Amino acid sequence: MTINSSEQQDGVNKSARTSYSNLPALDVSLAFPQATPATSKFPPCASDYYNFDGLLTSEERAIRKKVRECAEKELAPIVAEYWEKAEFPFQVIPKIGALNIAAGTIKGYGCPGLCITGAAVALAEIARVDVSCSSFILVHSNLAMLTIAQYGSEEQKQKYLPSMAQLKTIASWALTEPDYGSDASALRTTATKVEGGWILEGQKRWVGNSTFADLLVILARNTTTKQINAYVKLKKHAPGLTATKIENKVGLRIVQNGDVLLKNVFVPDEDRVPGFNSFQDTNTTLSISRLMVAWQSIGIAMGVYDMCHRYLMERKQFGAPSATFQITQQKLAQMLGNIQAMILAGWRVCNLYEDGKMTAGHASLAKGWITSRARETVALGRELLGGNGISTDFHVAKAFCDSEPIYTY
Amino acid sequence: MTINSSEQQDGVNKSARTSYSNLPALDVSLAFPQATPATSKFPPCASDYYNFDGLLTSEERAIRKKVRECAEKELAPIVAEYWEKAEFPFQVIPKIGALNIAAGTIKGYGCPGLCITGAAVALAEIARVDVSCSSFILVHSNLAMLTIAQYGSEEQKQKYLPSMAQLKTIASWALTEPDYGSDASALRTTATKVEGGWILEGQKRWVGNSTFADLLVILARNTTTKQINAYVKLKKHAPGLTATKIENKVGLRIVQNGDVLLKNVFVPDEDRVPGFNSFQDTNTTLSISRLMVAWQSIGIAMGVYDMCHRYLMERKQFGAPSATFQITQQKLAQMLGNIQAMILAGWRVCNLYEDGKMTAGHASLAKGWITSRARETVALGRELLGGNGISTDFHVAKAFCDSEPIYTY
Amino acid sequence: MTINSSEQQDGVNKSARTSYSNLPALDVSLAFPQATPATSKFPPCASDYYNFDGLLTSEERAIRKKVRECAEKELAPIVAEYWEKAEFPFQVIPKIGALNIAAGTIKGYGCPGLCITGAAVALAEIARVDVSCSSFILVHSNLAMLTIAQYGSEEQKQKYLPSMAQLKTIASWALTEPDYGSDASALRTTATKVEGGWILEGQKRWVGNSTFADLLVILARNTTTKQINAYVKLKKHAPGLTATKIENKVGLRIVQNGDVLLKNVFVPDEDRVPGFNSFQDTNTTLSISRLMVAWQSIGIAMGVYDMCHRYLMERKQFGAPSATFQITQQKLAQMLGNIQAMILAGWRVCNLYEDGKMTAGHASLAKGWITSRARETVALGRELLGGNGISTDFHVAKAFCDSEPIYTY
Amino acid sequence: MTINSSEQQDGVNKSARTSYSNLPALDVSLAFPQATPATSKFPPCASDYYNFDGLLTSEERAIRKKVRECAEKELAPIVAEYWEKAEFPFQVIPKIGALNIAAGTIKGYGCPGLCITGAAVALAEIARVDVSCSSFILVHSNLAMLTIAQYGSEEQKQKYLPSMAQLKTIASWALTEPDYGSDASALRTTATKVEGGWILEGQKRWVGNSTFADLLVILARNTTTKQINAYVKLKKHAPGLTATKIENKVGLRIVQNGDVLLKNVFVPDEDRVPGFNSFQDTNTTLSISRLMVAWQSIGIAMGVYDMCHRYLMERKQFGAPSATFQITQQKLAQMLGNIQAMILAGWRVCNLYEDGKMTAGHASLAKGWITSRARETVALGRELLGGNGISTDFHVAKAFCDSEPIYTY
Repeated sequence: MTINSSEQQDGVNKSARTSYSNLPALDVSLAFPQATPATSKFPPCASDYYNFDGLLTSEERAIRKKVRECAEKELAPIVAEYWEKAEFPFQVIPKIGALNIAAGTIKGYGCPGLCITGAAVALAEIARVDVSCSSFILVHSNLAMLTIAQYGSEEQKQKYLPSMAQLKTIASWALTEPDYGSDASALRTTATKVEGGWILEGQKRWVGNSTFADLLVILARNTTTKQINAYVKLKKHAPGLTATKIENKVGLRIVQNGDVLLKNVFVPDEDRVPGFNSFQDTNTTLSISRLMVAWQSIGIAMGVYDMCHRYLMERKQFGAPSATFQITQQKLAQMLGNIQAMILAGWRVCNLYEDGKMTAGHASLAKGWITSRARETVALGRELLGGNGISTDFHVAKAFCDSEPIYTY
Repeated sequence: MTINSSEQQDGVNKSARTSYSNLPALDVSLAFPQATPATSKFPPCASDYYNFDGLLTSEERAIRKKVRECAEKELAPIVAEYWEKAEFPFQVIPKIGALNIAAGTIKGYGCPGLCITGAAVALAEIARVDVSCSSFILVHSNLAMLTIAQYGSEEQKQKYLPSMAQLKTIASWALTEPDYGSDASALRTTATKVEGGWILEGQKRWVGNSTFADLLVILARNTTTKQINAYVKLKKHAPGLTATKIENKVGLRIVQNGDVLLKNVFVPDEDRVPGFNSFQDTNTTLSISRLMVAWQSIGIAMGVYDMCHRYLMERKQFGAPSATFQITQQKLAQMLGNIQAMILAGWRVCNLYEDGKMTAGHASLAKGWITSRARETVALGRELLGGNGISTDFHVAKAFCDSEPIYTY
Repeated sequence: MTINSSEQQDGVNKSARTSYSNLPALDVSLAFPQATPATSKFPPCASDYYNFDGLLTSEERAIRKKVRECAEKELAPIVAEYWEKAEFPFQVIPKIGALNIAAGTIKGYGCPGLCITGAAVALAEIARVDVSCSSFILVHSNLAMLTIAQYGSEEQKQKYLPSMAQLKTIASWALTEPDYGSDASALRTTATKVEGGWILEGQKRWVGNSTFADLLVILARNTTTKQINAYVKLKKHAPGLTATKIENKVGLRIVQNGDVLLKNVFVPDEDRVPGFNSFQDTNTTLSISRLMVAWQSIGIAMGVYDMCHRYLMERKQFGAPSATFQITQQKLAQMLGNIQAMILAGWRVCNLYEDGKMTAGHASLAKGWITSRARETVALGRELLGGNGISTDFHVAKAFCDSEPIYTY
Repeated sequence: MTINSSEQQDGVNKSARTSYSNLPALDVSLAFPQATPATSKFPPCASDYYNFDGLLTSEERAIRKKVRECAEKELAPIVAEYWEKAEFPFQVIPKIGALNIAAGTIKGYGCPGLCITGAAVALAEIARVDVSCSSFILVHSNLAMLTIAQYGSEEQKQKYLPSMAQLKTIASWALTEPDYGSDASALRTTATKVEGGWILEGQKRWVGNSTFADLLVILARNTTTKQINAYVKLKKHAPGLTATKIENKVGLRIVQNGDVLLKNVFVPDEDRVPGFNSFQDTNTTLSISRLMVAWQSIGIAMGVYDMCHRYLMERKQFGAPSATFQITQQKLAQMLGNIQAMILAGWRVCNLYEDGKMTAGHASLAKGWITSRARETVALGRELLGGNGISTDFHVAKAFCDSEPIYTY
């Protein structure tokens, strides 16, 4: 194969070329002394201009503070490195677990039962520092756990939720397929009733957490009823199931998306999620997850603004901080205005949810509008950082890339 | 240090987590069988809707064809892999060298003396497949070689240009500094006259090709005249000079940008570029390089459109090619209109150059306007590919990331 | 003069040309029977998707309802005609006066003392139907009355406020000058102390309401202190003062902006506003007026969405309502998302004001961001109405034109 | 009816209100002395930055010069006034007629047979000063005349074209209907064969020039063949035909669009256009008209840039011309870049037409892309003029409003 030979040639060339310059990279604080990298110290929050804290309960404020501290301390120093490697920083799982937020709004079974605003704010604070880590939680909590909590049997809830709430068991949720994306009406993976259980057959794509999760919630079409059913599958002993990492991503590189192949995979009867009998059942689940995606975008945009704000105060041009130039101020103001509006729209939908009034339309509009504004905000931020807006050392480049898959969901 | 201990913990976690799923990635043609990846076969050109070929001379058309074939054959299959690794594919250097385009418009000294349109089209065709590789050429050819060709002594031209024209000697061009970016009026690197030569002191950043180049053209402020001078420095024996790779980039990952430190670096008298006596001298050089950056953007946008066009014809939704849906068509039309206009604007400035009428303003407007439209075009393309717009297997994700530093230059 | 002769020729041509077609225009309900014009019946409110009413007090809701009913009943049928004529519909003044909203948040002196949210919502409801009429109120109430209420003497308050609150005395507020726009630091109009009063000299431009107002509040530079002072001037007996209508406007055509000339205009001592001693004093006044401009934009955007929503449900294409097409839905969703966010941002700043925490920055960001989103929303709406988006019969065209001066303020 | 009584009340109010300020408007050169209005002197062309003239033949350049001079001299001083009145300046018809451009590319029958680029440039130069006047020509020339020239009988050509070429006979072209817009496949107006001719029945809307044209080309569905046919109808003796002006427009106010009612209108056999047998026949006609709409947009954008350029050089802020501020320069550069690209794209499609290679797709893309960029350009220009961007005295406001119907066509 030609690539091998070119790799060989590459090897020769490479060693010839790089022998005299194969030095470790210059530390960014030496290479660009003007501004503090996000990896040294994450910038303080400057994006809460309309005092969103004043709309929160003291409990919600406490969650926000706790999660922010953890994210800035535990995630900020290491995520650029893991993003570069496209690997997941497993060591943060117990740290996030200890925050007691992974179960979101689920009550009972060892779950704290946060109010939705608290859950949303927690996710946003993680996303502010690293979007991939918030996606890890979203898949685990708002898709997999919520499916079990809403449609699972009492046994399933008791068996899975307590350990999942502490992130001791990690879950994945497999809906998307190669052919039709997330269009559930065209789902092709099948579940066929056999004695004592079901046989799953099919192929899933972009399944978050799937390469390392302990447990997959798999959506498949019941060959008898033609309806969509859900199944819990522990990965450890799963003959016929493979989950392989999708490589070559430019965004959310820390998220481990997998291609999941299901070849004659047996699931015993007790692992079917009994209350899940059609895709329409999942509308609430998906509405909540859409709202949570919106809050991820809020977090992304906040982190980008916070970084730009500090960077442009530190960086000097013509003897003055860059932040004082009119063109810069105009962009910062547009970003800041977007963020205030995004926060308030996200908060209002949480209100409606708490009042039992949130519709699927409310959540979809929030997701669509907020992710779109986040994309705009993040692109402005990337411009503002110039060359350093290309380097994940200064955070914004990573957030810029990560906001694309969030926008596309 | 805490990171070490967390890395240790990470190692433990990681091996526990991934032991049962440590499989090679699924080949993308199996994972997503609907559409052909760019790495298997680069899509044919569908973006020349207004028959730009009809405005070219037969010589220019021949250059275009030759470069396109080389780029599709030699670069397309391997660049996704090198982008992921953030390494340069040294094996392509002789392939590009054989195209006889590296010297651009320079005449004599073994240089073919392309017309500017031919040089521009060649660069665009490389950029259509991989922007980083075109940036490698741009730095080598339109910055370093052109400085020598325009301001060098007869000896320098004879010594360097023939081998550079064949890419046997690779060059870099060091202007940008950490403090003031590309603002030459604030250049801090100094050149102090000593017996038999000069001592260079200072720090450069974002210097393209610098980690593996054979030769650097370095811009420094003459401590006597206070003017900017240029120096040729062979890297092989360069005590005091280090060039270390800038890591953690999200765009142009194949380009090896370096932090260059100059500590008491001696340059003999004969390696000063004698005609380069002030920064104003470089306006022509920089105007040409700006025009060439515009043509890189044209190439980027063409490649993205070509990929989207094929992908959306191959991909089916609701039983019809995605390309037939109205929302998709609207975006494709906006992209296609942008590209025709970008090509024509770039071509017109080449005309003006050939007529001896191109001003710095003409080139700057082309660069500013065209890179901005490219950014818009590429963002539309990224949306159109959905989830696969995140994966470099389908080209657009890479071009999306690469267009950011091009836009920022 | 050539124009006269061409007008003569025009007259000849015109009568020749139009003799056989000089018919009254076709009623729009016959000319375009598919959709109901705004002049026949203003569309019901469809833009409060996130239930903003649920965030209002019952008093605020009552104000909203009362003002909306009045605007839809009294303004909607006539404003297209007055906009075309570029005249003010004086007959609506007593109708608006009866709403008891003209004094805004001012307390005492016959003023109802609305809370700021109530005042904001009232203004938005007027703007939803006609922006010019809301600008008439804004100038009268939030600029002129507020200056008197905040900085006037007890005698001035007793003399003017009760009648102004009922719109029996109409006021104007003269700051802007031809040379320097609204940049108060460059104000050139002078006030020179003379015996028993002051002499005003200068020129003002774009002064809203000035052609028909009973009273002008005029800002002028005290020639002694060099500070900005304010003066109340009754127009009826004002030798030296002329206010002439600015013609040829494409937006806010109902607002009567004037060029005000002040030539040796005498103002007695008792008509100087005693508390107004520098422009810095007006920051609160201007912050409130900026917030109110933001609420005008909210009203504009709501009216446009409401009209589009009804129109696109009524209008059929290929046998289905236009509103059901994907491209149309996408634009409607973007508009609707913008509006929810604009409302919430405007509401949040009212909260901050009520808590005594609103800064000038808060109000400026609201004005800048909200008017910019309104412009985007209104442009989308104009597209959605196609050809009928050019005709004020269907409201959106008028709102589109009116939003430009609001954006520019 | 309530409006009558309110008008009465209005009258009372109005005379009370305006008795003391009923003065003629201040001349704009006194009201705003800093900058020259377009009505006094149209700004010189600053928008041809990439020397488009250099791509034109000497004949095309001569047309451009001649038309520009006429438009600046004859149209610029009067169009603001007619736009305000929403009337057509009939006195300009002989002036435009004398330019010998009204027949566009038609050859023979007294028509000069311009090349397409010349015809396009002529239209753009009219549109640069007034879009409505260019629309008047477009309807007359590129729709009505071209239909006769391409599909008419020899007798029809000899009868109509010579007089139309000189604008002695003015034509209109009636396609659009209230129900289905310009969707020809849904055309409802019928043509029924009777002895000696045809009976037309139906309703048309937005028919340009129709209120004063001498002649209408009417498209109607043949009740026998179900195909679309075309008929020439002289308006002078046309029982059953009425054309009434559409009022209340916010753009192209000078264009006299009509609602055309056809009630039992008889057309003799010799006035059916014999070659026009299906709508598909008109594709070439419509493609040319689309290309011409694109050139109108080029003219609009040029006029706006030219005005902004002069205005911002004349206007001072903080002691320097406004044009020197960075935010202003950025917008001007974006406008200028757009315009160069629009011109070149329009020119390229003219090339393709001349080579016999222009497809309907080429023309549609030009129209869609160029009108969309014009809209963006004009909106930027409107912002740049601030308050004077609302007044037609400074041209941009009018162009801003006129570009909306052009964009919507």
